[in-house]
Parts: sequence; structure tokens; C-alpha cells
Amino acid sequence: MVDAPATRSDLLVDELERIARDIDGFFDAVLSVPDDPRARLYEAMRHAAIGGGKRLRPLLVMATAEMFGVGRESALRVGAAIEAIHVYSLVHDDLPCMDDDALRHGKATVHVAFDDATAVLAGDSLHALAFDLLADPATSADPFVRIELVRTLAAASGVQGMAGGQMMDIVAETRTFDLQTVTRLQQLKTGALLGAAVEMGAILGRLPPEGRTHLRGYARDIGLAFQIVDDLIDHEGDAALAGKAVGKDAAAGKQTFVSLLGADRARDQAFALVDQAVSHLAQHGAEADLLRALARFIVERDH
Amino acid sequence: MVDAPATRSDLLVDELERIARDIDGFFDAVLSVPDDPRARLYEAMRHAAIGGGKRLRPLLVMATAEMFGVGRESALRVGAAIEAIHVYSLVHDDLPCMDDDALRHGKATVHVAFDDATAVLAGDSLHALAFDLLADPATSADPFVRIELVRTLAAASGVQGMAGGQMMDIVAETRTFDLQTVTRLQQLKTGALLGAAVEMGAILGRLPPEGRTHLRGYARDIGLAFQIVDDLIDHEGDAALAGKAVGKDAAAGKQTFVSLLGADRARDQAFALVDQAVSHLAQHGAEADLLRALARFIVERDH
Repeated sequence: MVDAPATRSDLLVDELERIARDIDGFFDAVLSVPDDPRARLYEAMRHAAIGGGKRLRPLLVMATAEMFGVGRESALRVGAAIEAIHVYSLVHDDLPCMDDDALRHGKATVHVAFDDATAVLAGDSLHALAFDLLADPATSADPFVRIELVRTLAAASGVQGMAGGQMMDIVAETRTFDLQTVTRLQQLKTGALLGAAVEMGAILGRLPPEGRTHLRGYARDIGLAFQIVDDLIDHEGDAALAGKAVGKDAAAGKQTFVSLLGADRARDQAFALVDQAVSHLAQHGAEADLLRALARFIVERDH
Repeated sequence: MVDAPATRSDLLVDELERIARDIDGFFDAVLSVPDDPRARLYEAMRHAAIGGGKRLRPLLVMATAEMFGVGRESALRVGAAIEAIHVYSLVHDDLPCMDDDALRHGKATVHVAFDDATAVLAGDSLHALAFDLLADPATSADPFVRIELVRTLAAASGVQGMAGGQMMDIVAETRTFDLQTVTRLQQLKTGALLGAAVEMGAILGRLPPEGRTHLRGYARDIGLAFQIVDDLIDHEGDAALAGKAVGKDAAAGKQTFVSLLGADRARDQAFALVDQAVSHLAQHGAEADLLRALARFIVERDH
């Protein structure tokens, strides 16, 4: 059912390079800088959106959509929309009043390279761009598909998803959360958008909601595994390799999977979740190999 | 064609009170506070969205939609979505790194009442809420209508609309803009969203794009008149009446309609624009009286 690891890994390396190139090219085309006083805002959006990040969310869209025969251009537009949401959240999260980070993907954060006000507006503009991309007929000729994409992304990124999780993350600095609450925090903060990526790939593929259950299971498991590995990287990691500051959670006094479970149990848990994620794909053949490889990649990465 | 001023004014007073009550009630219902660590974020969203503002944008949606027989519930949801965008932009604009305002609608701004990080997230969450509301089938059973609403609002609020105008406004502090550039700045910063309100009312009313030309003309004229009056209030106004700080543009060295035209010519221009806005409605009878009254209100208000 599953290819040999070497093959799978080669497939993933190729696909990661391809999606990174495609997403960069897409944002480069969409965000061409006008010759007017808005130029600085476009430059800031480009700084944030081009040339950085693993592009996991677009690859999840693409990998899921391709299983159901969706064309690459549609999947790329949807992937870019989710990535625009992810990137806006990073730009705002890096602000001095939030996490106050100077380094992101190995380069200066937007507020450092530009200024705080421009970073706020660049985040807001990327946020609007995401819905602009989804609503455009180029994404899908079918308005049912487009509006379902908008609903899914709005729900996953707002107060009931990512933004709600970020609020919990701020509260975590002053309250001691138990494992259940940390799990909920991470499901909202990171899991909701990763889940939306898989869900939106399935929407493009015209899978009815009841046919998406196993894919939601896959997404939930890799989302949690992803965050446990993030905690492990923050706990043990190398800032140069991570391309961002590490060791911050302990300094902020936050409970994480590592502080609650210990590093060894946390690592075991991440591997178990990935096995479980892969088991959700049992009904699929080779067409799901990229999703399987992505699940493995999430626990094997070191940044 | 136009009713006596006294009647029109009574109509407007009633409608302004009604829309303010309805929008407050709507946000109160949508933003009920959960008993979990996200409660603080909901409280901040409520602080920003409930109990303040003239609700001009929702009233523009409502007034336009009612001309074409649209039910009040649909129009209210669309009005709340635009208002959520307007409110998020105020929350972010008031941040210390932006305009650094402590007072809005006569009460403490969100970052003062809560903190800067919560204000960033409350703005982001209201932003996502706007698209969540539009995409919901309760707004319209027709996905064509919903996706056209999403497209219109995303375009009006992003880098090609409101956010682009806000960037120009920041640049205006260090560059001297001429009248043409100030006009463009204001068309983006304020006009785009006011125009979207009228446009979205017409979309709900299923007017084809070619049938909306006169309404776009109306919206463009009142948008510009609105901003000229804002400049006059900032120039001459009373902070207690305005419910926000005044005299800020001159202090920041920004060119405004008042600095470029002088107060008298600016006021004449605003009245001329309102006459022109009303003339765009000549093809309509009494059903456009509320839009006419709104246009007059924009130049007659003192805050």
C-alpha cells in the first residue's frame, strides 16, 4: 500500500520544491508593485509572502485536490489563499506587541524591515487578498465551490479557529493550562488552518461533506503531530536552523506538549499520531502517497 | 421628486436609530461570549463592534437593498459584515503604532480597554467574521449572490481599496500630496467601503452590474463629500462632540481638502457633491428618499 521510503521521500522533496516555486511565482504575479504611494505596502506584502516557509498548507491543498483529479491552477490559487492567511498571521504575530520577533524564515520580520504600521496593514491586506483569490471565478467556475471555500477559510481563521487559538496562546502566559486545554489551543491555533487546507482540497475535488470524514481525521492527527514537533524544536532546536527564535515557550512560562509530557513521550506521541493519520488513508491507493509522505515529513523535519 | 426636508429628516432619524439598534443586537447575538480562554477576545470584539458609530455603511446597504425589495434580514447581515470590516480597520488604526488614539465613539479604544495584542487579534477576528457572515446561506440562498458579495467586500477592503488608502495616509505624513492624490487617497481609504455598501445592497437586489452605474456615481459623490466633512470636523471640530481626537491632520503635517482648498471652498465642494449625488437618483421615486436623506445628512452632521 505504501511505497518504499526512499521513493516517497524523493517524491516529497520534488513536490516541496515545486510548490515553493509555484507559490512564489503566484504571489510575484499577483503582487506586482504599482507606481504610486501604495508601493511600500505591496513591498511589505511581497517581503512577507515571497521566498520563505515550507508551504505545507498549499501542498496539503494540492496533494488532496490531485487525488480527485483537480487541475493544478485551481489548487494553486486555493493554496495561495490559505498561505496568505498563514502569512498574515505570522506578520501580526511577530509584531512587538505580540511575540516581538525580529527573525522569520531566516530574514528580518516585516515590522523590522519596514515599520510596525506597515506590518499591520500588510497583514490586513494579505488577509483580504485570501478571500479575493477564493471569490475569483478563476479559482472555480462553480460559485457553490467558491462560496464553500470562503466559508471554510473564514471559519478556520477567525475567532472560532486560528485567531481564537492565538488568544488562548496569549492567555497561556498567565494561566497554567492542562493537557486538554493545550491540545484545544493547538487544534485552534495551528490545526484549524491545516485542516482547512485538506478540507478545501476536498471541496475543490467535489467530495461531499460526508465523504471527507477520513480526510478530516488525517488532518487532525497531522495538525497535532505538527505542533508537538514544533514544541520539540522550540525545546531543543537551533535558531539558525529553525530560521526563527527558539526556547521562547519555556521563557514565557507556557505549558507545551513537551513541558506536560516530557520530550520522550511527546516524540512518541507525535509518531503515533502520524501512524494514525496514515491509517485514515487506508482506502486510498498510490494517489494518497503524497499525503502519506507529508505526514512522515512533519515528524522527521528539524525546522 | 424630493419630499419636504422636515419629513425626510424625520425618516432618517428613525432609520438611524433603528439600524443602530439592529446592528447592536446582531453583534450581541453573533458574539456571545464562550466560557473558555477565548472569552477575552470575544469581549474585545464586542467592545469594538457594539454601541458606537453612526452605522452609515449598514444603513447604505439597507436603503439600497430596500429599493429593490430585499428582505431586512439579508440586508442586515450584509450591513453587519461591512460594519465588521469598518470596525476592524478602526481598531487597528487606533493602535499605538498607527494613529495612537485613546478615544473612539466616546469610549476607550480597544487597545486601551484591553491591550495591544488583544486589539490586533480582535481586529483580525472581526475581519474574518465579515466573510463568515457573507458566505453563510442565511445571507442569501443563492451562492452567486453570496460570492459576488465576498468579491466586492474583499476588493474594497484590501490593498486596492481601504488598506491601500490607509497606506497612502501614512505616506502623506512625509510627502506633500496634491489635490488629485489626496482625492485618490480618500476614495480608497473611505470611499471604497462606502461604495461597497451601496454596491452590495444592489447585488442583494439582483441588479446587474450595468444597472448599478448611477448608484456607483451616488456612492462616489457621497464618499468624497463625507471625507471633506470629516476634514472640516477635524479642522474646526470639538473632540467631545466628535467622540475622538480632532486637529490631528494639521499636527501631522498632512494635506487635506481643507488645507488644499480652504474651509469655505471645501464646504462648497461638499454641498455640490451632495447635489450631484442626489441627481444620480433622478430615475427613482420615493423609494430612494432614504438615500437622498443620507446624502444630506453627510454634509449636515457635526461629528
